Amino acid sequence: MSLIVQKYGGTSVGTIERIEAVAAKVAAASSRGDRVVVVVSAMSGETNRLIKLATDIDQRPDPREMDVLVSTGEQVTIALLCMALKKIGCPARSYTGGQIRILTDQAHGKARILDIDDAPVRADLEAGRVVVVAGFQGVDEDGNITTLGRGGSDTTAVAMAAALKADECQIFTDVDGVYTTDPRVEPKARRLDRITFEEMLEMASLGSKVLQIRAVEFAGKYNVPLRVLSSFEEGGGTLISFEDEGMEEAKISGIAFNRDEAKLTILGVPDQPGVAHEILGPVAAANIEVDMIVQNIAEDDTTDFTFTVHRNDYQKALEILEANASRLKAREVHGDDAIVKISLVGVGMRSHAGIASTMFETLAKDGINIRMISTSEIKISVVVDEKYLELGVRALHDAFELSGEMDP
Amino acid sequence: MSLIVQKYGGTSVGTIERIEAVAAKVAAASSRGDRVVVVVSAMSGETNRLIKLATDIDQRPDPREMDVLVSTGEQVTIALLCMALKKIGCPARSYTGGQIRILTDQAHGKARILDIDDAPVRADLEAGRVVVVAGFQGVDEDGNITTLGRGGSDTTAVAMAAALKADECQIFTDVDGVYTTDPRVEPKARRLDRITFEEMLEMASLGSKVLQIRAVEFAGKYNVPLRVLSSFEEGGGTLISFEDEGMEEAKISGIAFNRDEAKLTILGVPDQPGVAHEILGPVAAANIEVDMIVQNIAEDDTTDFTFTVHRNDYQKALEILEANASRLKAREVHGDDAIVKISLVGVGMRSHAGIASTMFETLAKDGINIRMISTSEIKISVVVDEKYLELGVRALHDAFELSGEMDP
Repeated sequence: MSLIVQKYGGTSVGTIERIEAVAAKVAAASSRGDRVVVVVSAMSGETNRLIKLATDIDQRPDPREMDVLVSTGEQVTIALLCMALKKIGCPARSYTGGQIRILTDQAHGKARILDIDDAPVRADLEAGRVVVVAGFQGVDEDGNITTLGRGGSDTTAVAMAAALKADECQIFTDVDGVYTTDPRVEPKARRLDRITFEEMLEMASLGSKVLQIRAVEFAGKYNVPLRVLSSFEEGGGTLISFEDEGMEEAKISGIAFNRDEAKLTILGVPDQPGVAHEILGPVAAANIEVDMIVQNIAEDDTTDFTFTVHRNDYQKALEILEANASRLKAREVHGDDAIVKISLVGVGMRSHAGIASTMFETLAKDGINIRMISTSEIKISVVVDEKYLELGVRALHDAFELSGEMDP
Repeated sequence: MSLIVQKYGGTSVGTIERIEAVAAKVAAASSRGDRVVVVVSAMSGETNRLIKLATDIDQRPDPREMDVLVSTGEQVTIALLCMALKKIGCPARSYTGGQIRILTDQAHGKARILDIDDAPVRADLEAGRVVVVAGFQGVDEDGNITTLGRGGSDTTAVAMAAALKADECQIFTDVDGVYTTDPRVEPKARRLDRITFEEMLEMASLGSKVLQIRAVEFAGKYNVPLRVLSSFEEGGGTLISFEDEGMEEAKISGIAFNRDEAKLTILGVPDQPGVAHEILGPVAAANIEVDMIVQNIAEDDTTDFTFTVHRNDYQKALEILEANASRLKAREVHGDDAIVKISLVGVGMRSHAGIASTMFETLAKDGINIRMISTSEIKISVVVDEKYLELGVRALHDAFELSGEMDP
């Protein structure tokens, strides 16, 4: 008998019919003998409807009251799902974040979970009931309603699984797992049976947005096996867990990419201590987040400094650089917002030499010029011209044989 | 500095604009120096929307989950009203029934309030904040969400006022007070400045449905002065309180009527102990509520027995009587569902003789035949043919000079 936590997102509970389908899935797991805790989001569209009510009153509504308002979305879903479960003979009980006492800090709209009172849930599970928990919400120590921010239901599910020491936390969504790359770019992309937490973090932050990053971090921290699977199709999905021996075989798990970045370069800056801070300080002060940073020594004791920012921040960052160029004694400022970042991700590359050279060779063979390179333990990222995105991803997918079968 | 509880119903908070108008009213009271607690209902239409979601799943949804579902309606309103108050610079804080701990019994859908924790409210009021409370909802001792039944927000407001020993509980609604009779029947009907709890109960149960009966009973029990006034117009409304000396002047407060009744008569039943029970026992057993009951001695040691029921139950009650007629040795069974009940209500009639005879004389002068009479301490009700409703109400309104000015 396993204890599993299942999470269904807004699309999966978007209509009465879909809620009934979720109830059937949950009841099936329960009748197989598993003890089941279900975490649900608001019905799709509901959170936006509530936000509009608030912004019709105030463009910047009070954060405490915003949480009181939007938390009703999940409360509606837990009640409806329990009704649907009971109708098909499956005993169930709903809990709001406040009722189960999902204790958070006081950061309204982006609260962090501090503690969960698992006693009532355990009592219900012992009594043979399915427990249905409102995702995305909690209470602070004064009993004020808080929310974890949008998409926070994933985090609730992982936190419940950690508190209950669940055997698995299953995230049901509208995709059936994590893929080697985006199937819209490479139709031969293949669903991964397994992936490590670290790889998943790199894949997620690089643009394959299947799961909330915070939920993955949380699952890794508490060693909760996480499974992504489809609400609408059968299938085993993708299991996200710590690496095991079988995983060593795979050098590369997938190829992530990001079209939302722009590149800025400042050329011929005197190469002296503190120059990086002098360049990036004003950018950070303008609340612009920087992603990749690369610095090269050029000739004449000067250095070239390149970094990427979100494309929305490109113009602003360029203006800041240009305004500072003379103070920095820079020769020139360049910018390019028609670039993409492509990243190879895989824990296997730690112990396998030659991944980087194979990657560069593959791109070169197709005439793709690399503008920027950045590496980490389990990732190699390159920046190339935007027009090469599909060509580059497909070439790398082939070169690293990601379309083939992989042992689970 | 007074402490007042204000309650706004669903129509008064039915749109964002109306919520903003309520906020302006509340802020005005607060800036006059009053400490204000506001109780609100769900936005009009919202409760029905939620009920439809539930009945789409199950025609008889689980009562516990139904309360979890519908209680979100008021939760939305408290958040929006607090946002609107803060936007215009009025500090405010919202509370759900569970947060303020409105403790009820466990009767989901029709719970009764047992206790209210007034400490957090008092702290907020001391700190200069308006407190906004979700009406209609509470929690049982296990923390399950309960609701008081539809219209229960009036009861929440009165209970808050009682717990806080408020100076006044103001019920804002879409009428501007309690009238001497229905202005649609008698255009000369006049708003009453004051009325007693007892009179209000008689007026309400007789068809002038301005306030929930339970809320009036509750207010009377805890001696909470209750004021009914309009959300949309200025004016002092009607104060409902215990009678004081000034009230002795008024013999009659108003004229209520009820078109929803039907009359049944069983003629020539042997006049012996237990006959009333033999007649009404089978009616009660069929879950039919009986309103007026009149019994007359006829000739020959037989009696005629007449009672009224809701018009919806008329056919069923008639069948029951006819089925029992021979067992009761009754001579005949009559029925009439084209009748109305008209009632004079007023605490003043206790100490003023001649009210009844004036009433009967007035009706006789217009040729209105009285079919049935029933009296209580502060009420005289007559049943007449339906077609005489308007004529009778207007004649009585004139005869008792209800259109004239009355001292408050």
